[in-house]
Amino acid sequence: MSKNILSIDTVALDEEKRALKIIDQTKLPGTVEILYLTKQEEIYEAIYLLRVRGAPAIGVAAAIGIYLAALEITDTAYDDFYAKFKKAKDYLDSSRPTAVNLSWALKRMEKVVLDHRGAESAVLKELLHDEAVKIRDEDVWVCKSLGEYGLSLIKDGDGILTHCNAGQLATVKYGTALAPVHLGGERGMKFKVFCDETRPLLQGARLSSFEMVSAGMDTTVICDNMASQVMKNGWVKACFVGCDRVAANGDAANKIGTCGVAILAKHYGIPFYVCAPTSTIDMSVKEGKDIVIEERKGEEVTEMWYRERMAPQGVKVFNPAFDVTDHDLIDAIITEYGIVRAPYTEGLIKIFEEKAKQNG
Amino acid sequence: MSKNILSIDTVALDEEKRALKIIDQTKLPGTVEILYLTKQEEIYEAIYLLRVRGAPAIGVAAAIGIYLAALEITDTAYDDFYAKFKKAKDYLDSSRPTAVNLSWALKRMEKVVLDHRGAESAVLKELLHDEAVKIRDEDVWVCKSLGEYGLSLIKDGDGILTHCNAGQLATVKYGTALAPVHLGGERGMKFKVFCDETRPLLQGARLSSFEMVSAGMDTTVICDNMASQVMKNGWVKACFVGCDRVAANGDAANKIGTCGVAILAKHYGIPFYVCAPTSTIDMSVKEGKDIVIEERKGEEVTEMWYRERMAPQGVKVFNPAFDVTDHDLIDAIITEYGIVRAPYTEGLIKIFEEKAKQNG
Repeated sequence: MSKNILSIDTVALDEEKRALKIIDQTKLPGTVEILYLTKQEEIYEAIYLLRVRGAPAIGVAAAIGIYLAALEITDTAYDDFYAKFKKAKDYLDSSRPTAVNLSWALKRMEKVVLDHRGAESAVLKELLHDEAVKIRDEDVWVCKSLGEYGLSLIKDGDGILTHCNAGQLATVKYGTALAPVHLGGERGMKFKVFCDETRPLLQGARLSSFEMVSAGMDTTVICDNMASQVMKNGWVKACFVGCDRVAANGDAANKIGTCGVAILAKHYGIPFYVCAPTSTIDMSVKEGKDIVIEERKGEEVTEMWYRERMAPQGVKVFNPAFDVTDHDLIDAIITEYGIVRAPYTEGLIKIFEEKAKQNG
Repeated sequence: MSKNILSIDTVALDEEKRALKIIDQTKLPGTVEILYLTKQEEIYEAIYLLRVRGAPAIGVAAAIGIYLAALEITDTAYDDFYAKFKKAKDYLDSSRPTAVNLSWALKRMEKVVLDHRGAESAVLKELLHDEAVKIRDEDVWVCKSLGEYGLSLIKDGDGILTHCNAGQLATVKYGTALAPVHLGGERGMKFKVFCDETRPLLQGARLSSFEMVSAGMDTTVICDNMASQVMKNGWVKACFVGCDRVAANGDAANKIGTCGVAILAKHYGIPFYVCAPTSTIDMSVKEGKDIVIEERKGEEVTEMWYRERMAPQGVKVFNPAFDVTDHDLIDAIITEYGIVRAPYTEGLIKIFEEKAKQNG
């Protein structure tokens, strides 16, 4: 088993092999298996089966995937090329219909083809290559920039608590919530990282703790219900979590359990930070209660991972995948364009102004 | 599978079979298996292997166990009888050395023999029978009385959240934290009960939810990290938890995660009640921080129940078995002699005065 996965990007384009190179996350933490995928069916399956997961990582995988699919197209006439491209794009897009980044990345790739109507297929392939690499590079930049801001809020040796996995394994590199730790690690800093195991799917125990051990951090897995005790013991200087969507007022939807961590952090006077690439901030959503919370099947709680069913027949299960943390429980929202503190609506508007300015 | 376990006491003396009758809790929730144990080796094993668990239930099982062991003694001379009795008592006492109720019940049974020095063995056996039954009856009374007080704090149809299992399966009948619900159920009341699954050992998913389904309650299992969402949704009118030890200032040690539930309840303005038989209130312990918290092995978190290890090698695990809920997070401590509210030291002293008065 490779000890340092940090030398491997979660999602990459292997130029030599002309392949999408991913870490098969369904095998973690037991085995680090690198997959080289070239066929669109393989790439579809990898996304569908969560071999690659995390919104940013899925977006990049799809971009590289559709580029590889384009390489296979032998037609040279534009219309024929585009027809086959469109078919492959729709196919990949159906691998996880609700993943926003998946559609976003594929649409961006399609735009390249549409913007060059009539171009030779060889030229289109070159342009698609460059766009996929750009999408990848942007993801790395966003995480690194966000990590830099996050790192300014902590110091070497600090105890950090995180929930779920918003780490490198959910992006190309660095991650979001774990970006400050990874970036600090690159500079020789050491943190004591507490990973909530994050029931029911255990992304914290399986993925975050794996990343943190690989990065050489002093890593401790805890059950979700132990976070209070870890905080009470004075071991945590800051909490960093990712997010799925942030509303205009700063309310943040993230993996179930996040809100509870925020309430505990407030009780113990520990800063609670939400790491949010601007792509996850949705100014069209006024507040958290407008965000619909996905409920998943009860068997994830009562059967998954277990040798046998762990609850009696006849019992109901409530299994919300996410919860919303009210903005007044959040000390700061960390984006790639800066740190936002309350009042959030004002602050977030400024961040988008800054983004527009930097992107011309 | 029997649907109603409430017709079966968790621990009972079967007079006809001259046996300790228990529900094998290691088989729950999949199978309800009733065991009839007659040999001291079987009773030792049942306690050791947690077929019977929960401090009160263990105490009663030991009392019945040592009575059954006494029945096997054929010696009639007092000294010979006592020597064999003492040997059996020490043997049973070693089945779970740290269980306070185990030693307490066995000492009480021994006192019967010592208080009747020189008595005939047939008389001693009769006296031991009566003392075991008395210990059992007292446990039922304590739980029922406590449940009556708890029930006065809620009304038919209320949503109740509980953590771990402080139910009937931890006592002879009724339980402590779940006594108000069981007692209400006997009177035709229905509650919506939310059971925290209670990682790592899942007593909530396996045992509490089983009890509640059997009692005909609308029962929902949740992961521990979902309690915040359930409270936020307005589904919980009160939290009831048990306790392992209460300090003189009202700080209460209970299963890990209890303190986090209390913090959430305070945040959402939901009353948080600790159900504490006076036997668990230790006035010699000044405050919660004087209570030593047992840490258990990490494999309970990373391996137990799972098909394979769910965390990478090289990761640390913090696995405290209990936490302490500060008294200012507790709305009331419910005992068999009444409900105590802050200031707790004063209130608890009054409870012990009442206990002394009622017991002459």
